[in-house]
Amino acid sequence: MSKKTTIYDLAKRLGISPATVSRSLNDHPSISGKTKKKVLEAAKETGYRINKFASNLSLQKSNTIGVIVPRLNSDFMSTVLSGIETIANNAGYNLVISQSLEQEEKEKFNTKTLFESGVDALLVSLANETMNYDHFSIFTDRKIPLLFFDRVIDLPNCPTIIIDNEAAGYQATEHLIQQGCKHIIHVSSGLNRSVYKLRYAGYRKALKENENNFRERVIQVDNFSPPEAKKVIDFIKTSVHPIDGIFVSSDSLAVYIIKELRSNGYQVPNDIKVVGFNNDPVAQVITPELSTIEYPGYKMGKLAGQSILSHLSGSINIETADQIILKHRLIIRESSQK
Amino acid sequence: MSKKTTIYDLAKRLGISPATVSRSLNDHPSISGKTKKKVLEAAKETGYRINKFASNLSLQKSNTIGVIVPRLNSDFMSTVLSGIETIANNAGYNLVISQSLEQEEKEKFNTKTLFESGVDALLVSLANETMNYDHFSIFTDRKIPLLFFDRVIDLPNCPTIIIDNEAAGYQATEHLIQQGCKHIIHVSSGLNRSVYKLRYAGYRKALKENENNFRERVIQVDNFSPPEAKKVIDFIKTSVHPIDGIFVSSDSLAVYIIKELRSNGYQVPNDIKVVGFNNDPVAQVITPELSTIEYPGYKMGKLAGQSILSHLSGSINIETADQIILKHRLIIRESSQK
Repeated sequence: MSKKTTIYDLAKRLGISPATVSRSLNDHPSISGKTKKKVLEAAKETGYRINKFASNLSLQKSNTIGVIVPRLNSDFMSTVLSGIETIANNAGYNLVISQSLEQEEKEKFNTKTLFESGVDALLVSLANETMNYDHFSIFTDRKIPLLFFDRVIDLPNCPTIIIDNEAAGYQATEHLIQQGCKHIIHVSSGLNRSVYKLRYAGYRKALKENENNFRERVIQVDNFSPPEAKKVIDFIKTSVHPIDGIFVSSDSLAVYIIKELRSNGYQVPNDIKVVGFNNDPVAQVITPELSTIEYPGYKMGKLAGQSILSHLSGSINIETADQIILKHRLIIRESSQK
Repeated sequence: MSKKTTIYDLAKRLGISPATVSRSLNDHPSISGKTKKKVLEAAKETGYRINKFASNLSLQKSNTIGVIVPRLNSDFMSTVLSGIETIANNAGYNLVISQSLEQEEKEKFNTKTLFESGVDALLVSLANETMNYDHFSIFTDRKIPLLFFDRVIDLPNCPTIIIDNEAAGYQATEHLIQQGCKHIIHVSSGLNRSVYKLRYAGYRKALKENENNFRERVIQVDNFSPPEAKKVIDFIKTSVHPIDGIFVSSDSLAVYIIKELRSNGYQVPNDIKVVGFNNDPVAQVITPELSTIEYPGYKMGKLAGQSILSHLSGSINIETADQIILKHRLIIRESSQK
């Protein structure tokens, strides 16, 4: 990389102090119009790169918004990010995006790095592992807008954007009961995250209200990748009760479970009915097509972007933290019907 | 948002000039150790946020890398991004990510914004629409590292990371010919991008080498979304020649085409054989499972990150621009076999 022109080079060239160069570039009132013009011309001639972060320094504004997601390569998350980016980009903000890879330590590190890099606001969807939230205090203490989406925690003055996960879990399970399922299991991961805990709570609630039904049984998987589907099939094969319904907290895992069921001789939906979560594109690729909960990721991203921009522009005070609950919807397809 | 402490507040509090505060915070040699200590203490007490962009100003270094992708919500792109982020994050760099949404104008705007925000380097996968590349000169003129991946263009001193798309297109088509297909069509989009143009060239080459085969026929779709699959089926239904093979430049579109074929009474692979591109997870969800070209997105992301970090650290000179060609592989599954 070749050396770039700095304010010190400009100062030397013009025979003035670096501070005067800096203030001229920042349009400081203490500098004469003549000097400013001279500096700007020299900057242009030498290819000096006017740095927005620099020129916004006195305002402590970087025009960037930080985002931390569990992982980038998830259908749902990349759809949310696409929504956030569209809103931020139109408003002239850049997004600094990092992933926690579900690790608390990495989330802590990224929070600190984003703080130090001077982001104007931070949007977070929590890692499954995270149990302590002190690392966010560098933002909350300074009243820098902090918003949680999807995987949220209730912190003072931090808006959240979610869906009603308990109601969604209830509806998915209630639907399976109505279709005649007697032994329904729930498959999920990271049950310390409210998003999954609440879906599980909804599942239990629906079972309790239907006395003839099986007691609750949750299969915890490490993540939603294909090998985890085998664990579920192993449970089904060895269960004393004939499992006839599965509510899975993720479409991607649900489709792998359907594939495993088929290759183990089970018919879906005749033997076992399946409902997923998210309405990822893959839900309509699998045979039979997957019943699921529609979770509007793109809309969530757009709302998260809009909400944080409102806080930044001062049109909403960050201290009146709002909770936005998006509408979800049960989509009934072939995988769960009699 | 409450007002933050600025260098002007600190200057007033300490009775010194803002320039002295700024230089103290930047550890400038012209300021005494005593003054620096006083300033740093006051900064700490008032909660002044030391801005890394600011402290790196004299070095013109922001510790951020800009990335422009066509869209975030694509399996392939989010996998590449995940690889880039992993490398950048470990090296203490933040990623500023934006999407062009396939529009030249938006790509231009994002390039300018990322330049102004002071990124140390830029990684780009081009929009389908882009025909003119002048907007990248603000980077190349200043020798700020610029790297293209996947959808690339050959610009002086800009490294590229690709796969051999022509060879991949050739292999996919050659495989269909070996399986007995006589009338093979190619489905693609954005043929002005080399990545698609070269796959098409590979398809044509394979057909030419097999004299008994159908003349080439490419179906251009607007994008790889489900409605576009119908266009392909319409062509097949009205074709005078019985189409028996399809090579599609995208797995996501290939699976929608298979679904459409099935619902129109065609059997895959018996009537029509299909090969996709990318090896997205969806390729193993569809019935029959999709033959495809494995395109190592995560590896591409990691290499792109490593390559740009090498340039930034000076261990590789950006002017010896390298072209990295990753290995691809034909994966034969049910959708294309006799």
